[in-house]
Amino acid sequence: MTVRVSPVILSGGGGTRLWPLSRAAYPKQLLALGGESSLLQDTVTRVSAEGFAPPLVVCNDDYRFLVAQQLRDIGSQGELMLEPVGRNTAPAVATAALHIGREDPDALLLVLPSDHMIADVAGFRAMVAAGAPAAEAGWLVTFGVTPDRAETGYGYIKRAQALAEAPGCFAVAKFVEKPDLETAQAYLAGGDHAWNSGMFLFKAGRLVEEMERLQPEIVTACRAALDVAQRDLDFLRLDAEAFAKSPTISLDHAVMEKTERAAVLPADIGWSDVGSWDALWRIRSNGAANTLVGDVLALDSRGSYLHSEKPLLAAVGIEDLTVVATADAVLVCPRERAQEVRELVGQLEAAGRDEATYHRRVHRPWGSYESIDMDEGFQAKRLILLPGASISLQRHQHRSEHWVVVRGTAEVTRGEDVFLLQPNESAYIPVGTIHRLHNPGQEDLHIIEVQCGDYLGEDDIERFEDVYGRG
Amino acid sequence: MTVRVSPVILSGGGGTRLWPLSRAAYPKQLLALGGESSLLQDTVTRVSAEGFAPPLVVCNDDYRFLVAQQLRDIGSQGELMLEPVGRNTAPAVATAALHIGREDPDALLLVLPSDHMIADVAGFRAMVAAGAPAAEAGWLVTFGVTPDRAETGYGYIKRAQALAEAPGCFAVAKFVEKPDLETAQAYLAGGDHAWNSGMFLFKAGRLVEEMERLQPEIVTACRAALDVAQRDLDFLRLDAEAFAKSPTISLDHAVMEKTERAAVLPADIGWSDVGSWDALWRIRSNGAANTLVGDVLALDSRGSYLHSEKPLLAAVGIEDLTVVATADAVLVCPRERAQEVRELVGQLEAAGRDEATYHRRVHRPWGSYESIDMDEGFQAKRLILLPGASISLQRHQHRSEHWVVVRGTAEVTRGEDVFLLQPNESAYIPVGTIHRLHNPGQEDLHIIEVQCGDYLGEDDIERFEDVYGRG
Repeated sequence: MTVRVSPVILSGGGGTRLWPLSRAAYPKQLLALGGESSLLQDTVTRVSAEGFAPPLVVCNDDYRFLVAQQLRDIGSQGELMLEPVGRNTAPAVATAALHIGREDPDALLLVLPSDHMIADVAGFRAMVAAGAPAAEAGWLVTFGVTPDRAETGYGYIKRAQALAEAPGCFAVAKFVEKPDLETAQAYLAGGDHAWNSGMFLFKAGRLVEEMERLQPEIVTACRAALDVAQRDLDFLRLDAEAFAKSPTISLDHAVMEKTERAAVLPADIGWSDVGSWDALWRIRSNGAANTLVGDVLALDSRGSYLHSEKPLLAAVGIEDLTVVATADAVLVCPRERAQEVRELVGQLEAAGRDEATYHRRVHRPWGSYESIDMDEGFQAKRLILLPGASISLQRHQHRSEHWVVVRGTAEVTRGEDVFLLQPNESAYIPVGTIHRLHNPGQEDLHIIEVQCGDYLGEDDIERFEDVYGRG
Repeated sequence: MTVRVSPVILSGGGGTRLWPLSRAAYPKQLLALGGESSLLQDTVTRVSAEGFAPPLVVCNDDYRFLVAQQLRDIGSQGELMLEPVGRNTAPAVATAALHIGREDPDALLLVLPSDHMIADVAGFRAMVAAGAPAAEAGWLVTFGVTPDRAETGYGYIKRAQALAEAPGCFAVAKFVEKPDLETAQAYLAGGDHAWNSGMFLFKAGRLVEEMERLQPEIVTACRAALDVAQRDLDFLRLDAEAFAKSPTISLDHAVMEKTERAAVLPADIGWSDVGSWDALWRIRSNGAANTLVGDVLALDSRGSYLHSEKPLLAAVGIEDLTVVATADAVLVCPRERAQEVRELVGQLEAAGRDEATYHRRVHRPWGSYESIDMDEGFQAKRLILLPGASISLQRHQHRSEHWVVVRGTAEVTRGEDVFLLQPNESAYIPVGTIHRLHNPGQEDLHIIEVQCGDYLGEDDIERFEDVYGRG
């Protein structure tokens, strides 16, 4: 590719459809569903090639540290732009276009969801290259996926005439919402409809131009949010008050369905939005009787997706079921009803269940912790501190803490003292004593912490210094 | 009841049919399936009334402490006879008859499995009373259950003429194995077949007499095992070598099917052998759409038995399934195929899976422990010591231990030192140091133990003194 493309990766997704593996605080794009790397990491890697600038990742404030960590883990030089609140894709893309367009309004923005799978990476890159001439010519290009089945779970794009200036590209006739089965079958047979993949290519300046004409409110809000954005560590944090004033709307509804210059480039690149457990089963099943992930034993079963993150999952005589087990939650559902997992999670949220939002392992800027045992008067956790990380200088009013180092090296600050602990060494932090835990080493630090006290809530914490800017 | 009856409770059952709730090391009779108390405890309570002597419980050596603890918890004065190896019911009953018959050959033995449910306790006691005259007259009485459906999972007893000396009792025409559905329907329609419940009533001396005639080998082996039985704490431990010489055979096959003096007393007492998850569902479902036990959410589901001991179990749109989740294993199976759980457990055993045999919480004479976290170089456990209990004086070659008391009081022996620890206090036991943990208090002692070392197997233990007689 000779043209330089600036990827804008949207990482605002939720955690409902692949529950209990995804959670609100650990959404789908952060999961390694296809192997070792997460969907977000795969998305970044897909555009880590000649012709692509480092990506701008737009993500929700809540999981900025997780996203940053995943980018670091794959050596990405990408920039992170934080949305203080979710406003759907139009404001996210508008802000990215304004930000990149300030330096170069002719920059080609490649907008990508972070939570899809694409099997054919070379095909993906060829697709982007094929779309570039249309984008250079001022078209707002959306990439369509050539259907291989009468899918009723996706929106479709109907194409009109071919574009002379870009072989393979067509003007958009119209966008259509999820069809019924009969309509989907007609689309498949007709050959002039493609699935709406949510990937786009356009000049930054052209998008802003169309936005200003069609959705001036969004541009006003986003420009204001960007003007007073704060640099916070490595993050570019949009102004909350200004950004919140933007309407909540998708880029399709806001611009693509209204502009005269929408183009579509259909492509067959092994794409899936992994929008449900059933979609994941379709990708992974590969003709096998069942798809088994993790510690699973299935006897005389078929058509089932069985996935365990922790317990032994054993099935006898089941058919066409999805069963997903994690350390704290188990889902059982017929494969074809996987879409309803969303409603289930809605009910869990309404009931105030932690399992709707959090995993047992909770991620923090310094690493993570998992509650491994809890009962009246105590809680035991395993803490994992990343190399160089520190837990803030802090004090608890209601609990003391016993620390046993089980891997790595800890630097402990306790009152006036600072000392090192190696594996098999321990320290005691009495109630009310100012303390800090730091990992001075090159490997992860693992500590078993036993908290004792009459109140053990996470909010019993008085922070004195926090390198991550938390109060 | 004016006659005094000596209950003999057989507690030798396995752990396969209600896996993953039951395990080989924690069999079905120890589970509280109907509420607060276990099936074994319910069996003991059912015969804790006027007219019944304290029970003799025959149980496998492997879970003697669990059985003893459950008896203590309900204040039972029963005696515990330990089978060194399982030899099916005939040798167990023969030994009990020899043991009780030595003092009183005319004692009426009431033989009861420990893992059945009986809804109508008054009906059960009336049934025993009704059988007594026949037993007194020298009959070997077996109790039949009046069928309420064409069940193919049970054996049946066909009755012959009524006994003049015992109203309600009949001579046995024959025992029949599990029938096919058509035969079971004919039995149900005919009214002269009852389910074989495995409950018996006879004079100790009469049973021995019939055994000596029909199965002299068994009597020889059992008498020898009893002659040199050892008193071990509160247990009567049968001699292993002698007992092992007995044939392995059920009381039905050994005696009941062969004797001329078998009688049957049919009764309708709300009996179930709880022989599968489906049987438990039948007992508990009570016409409801689903049967939910523990932390379960079911949307738009029906006919299902959903049981969780720990994780959140969530189901959408399922039908006629059994799902059982514990801390370390999950079972999913159509309700009607619940019998096949047995084969599943067989496969797990063949694969050497711990989950076939043990729960995460492992029971010991002094209490229990549960591994709460484990990784390279360390393991964390919660230990629970019963009041007055001690872990043996011991030493490890490969691991050190950090103890944090979180509830109760600990008396720690470490080398030459003996000291007390209260909640929120800790101690460190270096590799190679002789140590002991004792609970001197009146409440359970809870300790978080963090083991560090290059080898953490349970067999790295050198015992110096053990109050429970373990080497």
